[in-house]
Amino acid sequence: MPYFDSASSAPLHPVARQALLASLDEGWADPARLYREGRRARLLLDAAREAAAEAVGCRPDELVFTPSGTRAVHSGVAGALAGRRRTGRHLVVSAVEHSSVLHSAEAHEADGGSVTEVPVDRAGAVDPAGYAAALRSDTALACLQSANHEVGTEQPVGEVAEACRAAGVPLLVDAAQSLAWGPVPAGWSLLTASAHKWGGPAGVGLLAVRKGVRFAARGPVDERESGRAAGFENIPAVVAAAASLRAVRAEAEAEGERLRGLVELIRARVPELVPDAEVVGDPVRRLPHLVTFSCLYADGEALLHALDRAGFSVSSGSSCTSSTLTPSHVLRAMGVLSEGNVRVSLPPGTAAGDVDRFLEVLPGAVAGVREQLGAPAATAAAATAAAAGDAPPGSLLVDTTGRRCPIPVIELAKVIADVPVGGTVTVLSDDEAARLDIPAWCRMRGQEYVGERPADHGVAYVVRRVS
Amino acid sequence: MPYFDSASSAPLHPVARQALLASLDEGWADPARLYREGRRARLLLDAAREAAAEAVGCRPDELVFTPSGTRAVHSGVAGALAGRRRTGRHLVVSAVEHSSVLHSAEAHEADGGSVTEVPVDRAGAVDPAGYAAALRSDTALACLQSANHEVGTEQPVGEVAEACRAAGVPLLVDAAQSLAWGPVPAGWSLLTASAHKWGGPAGVGLLAVRKGVRFAARGPVDERESGRAAGFENIPAVVAAAASLRAVRAEAEAEGERLRGLVELIRARVPELVPDAEVVGDPVRRLPHLVTFSCLYADGEALLHALDRAGFSVSSGSSCTSSTLTPSHVLRAMGVLSEGNVRVSLPPGTAAGDVDRFLEVLPGAVAGVREQLGAPAATAAAATAAAAGDAPPGSLLVDTTGRRCPIPVIELAKVIADVPVGGTVTVLSDDEAARLDIPAWCRMRGQEYVGERPADHGVAYVVRRVS
Repeated sequence: MPYFDSASSAPLHPVARQALLASLDEGWADPARLYREGRRARLLLDAAREAAAEAVGCRPDELVFTPSGTRAVHSGVAGALAGRRRTGRHLVVSAVEHSSVLHSAEAHEADGGSVTEVPVDRAGAVDPAGYAAALRSDTALACLQSANHEVGTEQPVGEVAEACRAAGVPLLVDAAQSLAWGPVPAGWSLLTASAHKWGGPAGVGLLAVRKGVRFAARGPVDERESGRAAGFENIPAVVAAAASLRAVRAEAEAEGERLRGLVELIRARVPELVPDAEVVGDPVRRLPHLVTFSCLYADGEALLHALDRAGFSVSSGSSCTSSTLTPSHVLRAMGVLSEGNVRVSLPPGTAAGDVDRFLEVLPGAVAGVREQLGAPAATAAAATAAAAGDAPPGSLLVDTTGRRCPIPVIELAKVIADVPVGGTVTVLSDDEAARLDIPAWCRMRGQEYVGERPADHGVAYVVRRVS
Repeated sequence: MPYFDSASSAPLHPVARQALLASLDEGWADPARLYREGRRARLLLDAAREAAAEAVGCRPDELVFTPSGTRAVHSGVAGALAGRRRTGRHLVVSAVEHSSVLHSAEAHEADGGSVTEVPVDRAGAVDPAGYAAALRSDTALACLQSANHEVGTEQPVGEVAEACRAAGVPLLVDAAQSLAWGPVPAGWSLLTASAHKWGGPAGVGLLAVRKGVRFAARGPVDERESGRAAGFENIPAVVAAAASLRAVRAEAEAEGERLRGLVELIRARVPELVPDAEVVGDPVRRLPHLVTFSCLYADGEALLHALDRAGFSVSSGSSCTSSTLTPSHVLRAMGVLSEGNVRVSLPPGTAAGDVDRFLEVLPGAVAGVREQLGAPAATAAAATAAAAGDAPPGSLLVDTTGRRCPIPVIELAKVIADVPVGGTVTVLSDDEAARLDIPAWCRMRGQEYVGERPADHGVAYVVRRVS
């Protein structure tokens, strides 16, 4: 049963399992104690720290183990901001950071700080010059992921680090998605990562803080992990995390190339096999194992269920799969289609045959979901528009309020042929995803997106038929 | 090799190991995902929550898993204080709470809140009436451990809970040391615990918050664990924690009785076998597996090393074993001797023969340490006092500045016979432990502790010879 969601959590690597089992008997005691069980635990912890530091590319005393990648980010951002509070309270983040970074930024704003979100291009990358322009004399910290977790795009970390260095601002790099594949380019000041993303156990994150970076740990004092990660050390898990990081690094070059080939196959074949599908993310500067695409007129949740029934576990950034009713902030920041979104992230060892089978199954799964929703056929749109109401002549008004993604786009597609070229369709919608998906539909279908205006219930999106 | 420090961390219970192994293959995926691996992980997490909630005595939706007991306390205290901020910013704690509670209280004070520390008696217990008197109209939260981690004394949780209920103040009970032995008496509002104390794995704490208790989680938003414990769930560890809690509870009554017998043996024999030793903590209302005693004229760290060489792993609250230069805050709050302190906490399954062997080894270990330090023999004190300087006739001044525990008490003991009955010995010391140990020595030796006054370097402690 192929699992294609390693970007959420990877199955435990065999080396992690082995190291975990081996250290359960030696690593349970308190490493701060002086007796033999404590000394043994301390030796394991020190060795794990050295191994992890080597993979990260830092000194062992610059690295602490946290209970998760999320906690590493929370502690890293809060500690760096507090350490430079005298400089100012301005924080710079990219618009496509992991939620742990963006939620840290929200907490900072709620606490009176200010935040600048640097936008990304349609491939999901920040522009180094744009990032540099966001840095100010009162900027305490800048954050940039090494690569995006939803679309796989690598960020220009080296160039942004150089800009941060020039501005005297420390840069925190969230390396959660990339650390398995290699070290982060030089120039970072703080680095965070998460072991269960590389096949290590849950319960282990990394926080590295370069010597000389001002850092003031937040929260109640605790003597563990240099005062930067409170709570009793989880040594068996830490040992397993470090061992598996070494193991995946040893395989990274060869396995990365192999998975890159499988991902390239998906990138090439999906648009051929699935009508109205859009592959998103940078085609070249990207993680080797991750690819994301969206399908017009498809419901992300229904698509996940259909693929799950066919034996494939994938994830989605579509709003219809989450409880928040808003589409993925990453897709939104990129300005790409969010409906029918599928993220495929291949764990190491994925068989080529499983990818082939996925490509066989996918078209039918998408077609089935579209059929259920009454999506327009590729040939002609059905003429079932709502009455035009107050719309001008040559125009139609489609009221989809109360209906969720992908219905607004489906209804738009159904009626576009009913207005003359030059005429407009106005879609009323109170679904947050429509703001992203209606312009994306226009782009994909060669129609003109005129703009939006507030309406009594939700928003009116105006589309002009140009072909 | 007997390990007698289960109050620090217990070896992994066989049931925990088994549950951990069994869930490594099923519990690695993200329980928030809808595909089969996610659903399996969710089932494991839900089952673990139900089992843990049953052992705690709460509803499953009242309990979240945290990355450690320390994090459970930090989050519990901060969240409860924030939830009742409108009521006031006053926090009540006992003076002998775990450092995670006291450090949370310090952080609250640093943030502008106020804290009342309720004192304890010489057995280490708070007085319920005294605790009740500390509650005010602006008290947002009260904290009381179920039993003390250093001396084993049980706190009057039921009576304090009743006082808190009457005052309308929520009570947080840190049950880290007692949860293995049974549920906390009714009446608590929040409860915290730590799995590695009961033979579960590291990396798992519990935080239970009763329905209706105002609680506002602190820190960046995170959707995991009802928003009360950020970061990816550590499901295999959580499953192991819950399974081992059930297992130790099933054995608790019989094993508790057996260990209580072994501890009673230690309590009775140590004063017989070791001259000038004091057993501390309540003799009756206490944890079944934990006993603490202190030895005059002994260095705690040297004693731990001697016992370690003899094959016994124990811990100590003496200042000479820690990096802080202050003795255990618990022993200080109780007003008992801190030098040569040894805490024995027996893991389940401890063999009676190992306790017998400990009692055989202990007298020689203490004697060896005392001999190295030149401690006075039981019969007569050596007459090597420093010159009297500005001391009045019939008095001696002993300058021990710059020398650490147990030297000040040793020097005092050496010269006490050199002053006439009615005369005084003044000990100059800059060691924080002297404040505790000199009065304790007076009590144990039937001499009069007159008091202390500031001196040029440190403090002058005055003792009158009365026998």
